[in-house]
Amino acid sequence: MNFDISLLEKCKNNSATIGIVGLGYVGLPLAQRFIASGFKVVGFDIDQSKVGMLTKGETYIQHIPSNIIKEMLKEGFCATSNFAQIKEIDAIIICVPTPLNKYREPDLSYVISTIDAILPYLQKGQLLSLESTTYPGTTDEEVVTRIEKAGFKVGHDYFVVYSPEREDPGNKDFEGKSIPKIIGGYTDKCLELGLAVYNKAISRMIPVSSTRAAEMTKLLENIHRSVNIGLANEMKIVADKMGLDIYEIISAAASKPFGFTPYYPGPGVGGHCIPIDPFYLTWKAREFGIRTRFIELAGEINNSMPQYFVNQIALVLNSNGKSIKGSKILVLGIAYKKNVDDARESPSIFMMDLLKEQGAIISYSDPFFPKFPQMREHKYNLEAVVLNETTIQSFDCVVIATDHDQFDYNLIRKHAKIIIDTRGVLHKLGLTSVTK
Amino acid sequence: MNFDISLLEKCKNNSATIGIVGLGYVGLPLAQRFIASGFKVVGFDIDQSKVGMLTKGETYIQHIPSNIIKEMLKEGFCATSNFAQIKEIDAIIICVPTPLNKYREPDLSYVISTIDAILPYLQKGQLLSLESTTYPGTTDEEVVTRIEKAGFKVGHDYFVVYSPEREDPGNKDFEGKSIPKIIGGYTDKCLELGLAVYNKAISRMIPVSSTRAAEMTKLLENIHRSVNIGLANEMKIVADKMGLDIYEIISAAASKPFGFTPYYPGPGVGGHCIPIDPFYLTWKAREFGIRTRFIELAGEINNSMPQYFVNQIALVLNSNGKSIKGSKILVLGIAYKKNVDDARESPSIFMMDLLKEQGAIISYSDPFFPKFPQMREHKYNLEAVVLNETTIQSFDCVVIATDHDQFDYNLIRKHAKIIIDTRGVLHKLGLTSVTK
Repeated sequence: MNFDISLLEKCKNNSATIGIVGLGYVGLPLAQRFIASGFKVVGFDIDQSKVGMLTKGETYIQHIPSNIIKEMLKEGFCATSNFAQIKEIDAIIICVPTPLNKYREPDLSYVISTIDAILPYLQKGQLLSLESTTYPGTTDEEVVTRIEKAGFKVGHDYFVVYSPEREDPGNKDFEGKSIPKIIGGYTDKCLELGLAVYNKAISRMIPVSSTRAAEMTKLLENIHRSVNIGLANEMKIVADKMGLDIYEIISAAASKPFGFTPYYPGPGVGGHCIPIDPFYLTWKAREFGIRTRFIELAGEINNSMPQYFVNQIALVLNSNGKSIKGSKILVLGIAYKKNVDDARESPSIFMMDLLKEQGAIISYSDPFFPKFPQMREHKYNLEAVVLNETTIQSFDCVVIATDHDQFDYNLIRKHAKIIIDTRGVLHKLGLTSVTK
Repeated sequence: MNFDISLLEKCKNNSATIGIVGLGYVGLPLAQRFIASGFKVVGFDIDQSKVGMLTKGETYIQHIPSNIIKEMLKEGFCATSNFAQIKEIDAIIICVPTPLNKYREPDLSYVISTIDAILPYLQKGQLLSLESTTYPGTTDEEVVTRIEKAGFKVGHDYFVVYSPEREDPGNKDFEGKSIPKIIGGYTDKCLELGLAVYNKAISRMIPVSSTRAAEMTKLLENIHRSVNIGLANEMKIVADKMGLDIYEIISAAASKPFGFTPYYPGPGVGGHCIPIDPFYLTWKAREFGIRTRFIELAGEINNSMPQYFVNQIALVLNSNGKSIKGSKILVLGIAYKKNVDDARESPSIFMMDLLKEQGAIISYSDPFFPKFPQMREHKYNLEAVVLNETTIQSFDCVVIATDHDQFDYNLIRKHAKIIIDTRGVLHKLGLTSVTK
């Protein structure tokens, strides 16, 4: 039997069923995209509460409103925690998290437990695509190996590709379908089938020579960001010391029509990509006896930024004869970047932790978080402060930690006693900051 | 007397005389631009041979052919080593080199000796612009101080700006006049006059708040390049070890429509900017008690690349049972980058030195250098090898060190016994390399 021809046919006539495992920031928009391309999609997640919400037509991701979920349901989408349904799927796409453990080592437990959970239900002729960011070699060493142990011959009766997600939450210029997508196959046949599966949902697929090349490509993209943000942060530290305004300098440099791309400093990096992904390469490189020094330096500098700004807060309070201890400090924005409802790895919260440790009376405001979210490593029983003249004036210091567009910066600028602007948003808006 | 109004008037009616000190890669094209804008230009250089050539209508810079020099002479351009003529100049523009000494410290001797040489001839109402790349504070601390000691009051009867050059030799997409140019003044009045002088010769001037901000902007541009090239080099080393093709990966990553800018690895960095400029900031930062770690790491990795490729050459020769000692090695391209006739700080030549040290029989070929140029630190009594089937076949190893467009890569690919391609040009042209 030609397993590949069967799947190719199903992709052509839109009769393939796509199974998406992991219905988070990556999996849910992807499900939507496949449905829009005319495929039947089943969503899998071990989180029963997510499955329950989706089944009721409710959402848990701000930029995918519930009316979109309801439309998806109408188009035949269903969500389930029952992995036995994998049997009826033609193409399985895995979008589970790949975090770091506390020693900054790759934590592949979500990927591996997903593979283990679906393994009993795999069928000949299926395609499996891993989308989770990971080090070069993961797909071959961790996924293909397990599938072959279960009795399949990958490339003949089972097909495996790696195709990294390229979501950029909050970026309105690029919509998921239009972002070119990298894909590498375990064999040429795997690649061919992977392309057939994705081609209708994604405008432009970029095939590379192997799963390893695809894995490395995704890491390079995020390493590039991490290093350039790290450099911007180091340059800010130098400029601050020299009494120069780094935002003025970056804007001026950006007038160069070639050879320069502006990156801006900030309180560090957050979210589920930039602080994490690069260290997947660092870890794997050790196997080959090499160090990834740019990645480590960028990590070190980016991670030091919350403390850098806490020191600035202390200095400014001190010049007013105050200590951090006992001062009322308002942190604006706890999302890891502007205009998103995601607080994972947010440097704002690392700053809050440092300020709290030193005895500050901490409050926050964030239009995306009316209540401080439940997090494993940060506990705050707080509700967002409503910003107005009276509330802003009541704080000894206001810290702009995340530059959401929804904040009224004129109001903040007018009534705050002291502003520490970690994002340079007042500079960009032409409002001068109280402090440098 | 209003010194500023007199200069403003002269700029408006094109009657100002511009004096350009230092007629090298920066000064000579700038002279051409000012002449094209209708100004009278006098060129100053201590190098009598340059002055002699220009006076005879001859050139020493490939991309400014002698017919351009002859046209400039017709338009009234003259070159001189007589600094007494500074008396007749309205705006003095200094374009002298700012190298590093052998301890990687700024060597401002050309700037300072230029100031000392012109100081006796300065006139009230003149404007002086420094274009040489340097650390924040140079213009104020080294230039203004000296001019004020000579009895002028800068901002009142003498005017000083800093406006860094943004030349990119070999870049055909951007012509000098169209590249926006940064400028910072010692006072607002200085800035106003500086803008008046440059406005006709440059399409778009970008004023910043101070000479220091302008100095820092230029450094940031080149630091950005140095760090991104360093990162590409580190990623090449990792990819090589993992058996991945870094060029495939960078090209794939470049398909991302946001957040990624491709930089490519190579044998190191050369020329008079990228290897040098960043260390001006490193040096100045020490005064403020801070380290510029990205700059140092980039310098270290970029400087290690010639040795990295020499090791690759040794490995490939070794696999053929040969040593570097006694092997005939042809280095293609000694310019520091493609399509330019400039070999300063060229990593190709550092590779040649390393190979020669280990006993290789070294030859080179470069369409821009029929004879090996006279250099202070590298001595080769060599003429460029003419590339053809016979000559190429006669070498044990051919190293593509500079990817000039003029090389016939098909011919090289076909006849070379072994190719080490430090620039990935064979990948870009779709010709596979013999080695990775």
